[in-house]
Amino acid sequence: MYKALYNHINRFVDLNNDEQEILASLLKSFSFKKKAYLLEEGQICRANYFVVKGCLRLYFIDIKGVEQTTQFAIENWWLTDLTSFLIQQPSEFFIQAAETTEVIAIEHHQYDEMFKILPKIERYFRLILQKNHQAAQRRIKFLSSFTAEERYRHFNGLFPEFVQRIPQYMLASYLGFTPGFLSKIRAKKVF
Amino acid sequence: MYKALYNHINRFVDLNNDEQEILASLLKSFSFKKKAYLLEEGQICRANYFVVKGCLRLYFIDIKGVEQTTQFAIENWWLTDLTSFLIQQPSEFFIQAAETTEVIAIEHHQYDEMFKILPKIERYFRLILQKNHQAAQRRIKFLSSFTAEERYRHFNGLFPEFVQRIPQYMLASYLGFTPGFLSKIRAKKVF
Repeated sequence: MYKALYNHINRFVDLNNDEQEILASLLKSFSFKKKAYLLEEGQICRANYFVVKGCLRLYFIDIKGVEQTTQFAIENWWLTDLTSFLIQQPSEFFIQAAETTEVIAIEHHQYDEMFKILPKIERYFRLILQKNHQAAQRRIKFLSSFTAEERYRHFNGLFPEFVQRIPQYMLASYLGFTPGFLSKIRAKKVF
Repeated sequence: MYKALYNHINRFVDLNNDEQEILASLLKSFSFKKKAYLLEEGQICRANYFVVKGCLRLYFIDIKGVEQTTQFAIENWWLTDLTSFLIQQPSEFFIQAAETTEVIAIEHHQYDEMFKILPKIERYFRLILQKNHQAAQRRIKFLSSFTAEERYRHFNGLFPEFVQRIPQYMLASYLGFTPGFLSKIRAKKVF
């Protein structure tokens, strides 16, 4: 039932069948339609979400009232508002399905329990969090180190399929420019 | 010798004396004078640094040639360029001592070893990385959600001693405005 997650975990640590069953008892599966909200500003973030299929995005509304997308999660990535999830306080972020999305969720009241029952999972999440933190360090630099056009070309070079997959306005906000500017760059590419 | 680190680890997991000795065999201590570099752009980041006393900052040079400070680490925080450290590739960042600083370092060739010999440490670093990732998620929102003056007042409210401690131009770049603007805000506060 949670095969995609077991496969991902087994890239990093070996979970045997018994351990997979224990883990399964702590998890839930959900499906979200495109544009559905998993979290809205002011709500408490209930879970940490592993994407089986589809795409989630984390965003907030900035001081000018504009959506700022700060993270995407596609297949095999985890996404949550970590502060709201860990402390169970109202979130300042939104989590939205950018496509029809299937997730596996570990809810807050099971999260600490998971590490208690399955200490092996500490290593898996330590390695996942390292990847998350690497991505955060690099994105901040990326946004300040290139022109908007260079950012688009670089990102498109790294993740061409992803760029085709998601709505332009979400990509634009992730790369730090307006949707209009993105249309111009794409038009240039064609001619 | 590494008492500050043992104390910090013991807030999260219990290391007994034998385990502390094993850990000690993997660590090193260094002192850096104010303004000394632990890492410069183009170098490979050798270690993950735990601050015993003082302050480190992580920064890069942006497209306009301006220093952008993205992280500070004071007592009990870890700092590294995680990508350069983990993959041992040239860094795009600088790590500098903002004050005379004492650190405990775990070097790359000992890092994986540490988790192998002391699996308990997985939990400690999982929790530390959660805090780091929380800070990264919140800082991105913080920079886009307030005016420059609000950012200064908010940050000063949270960390008044820290604001007094570090050079103004470093704080200005961390909060996303020019040193001149920071002087103006501070002047307003006095009169």
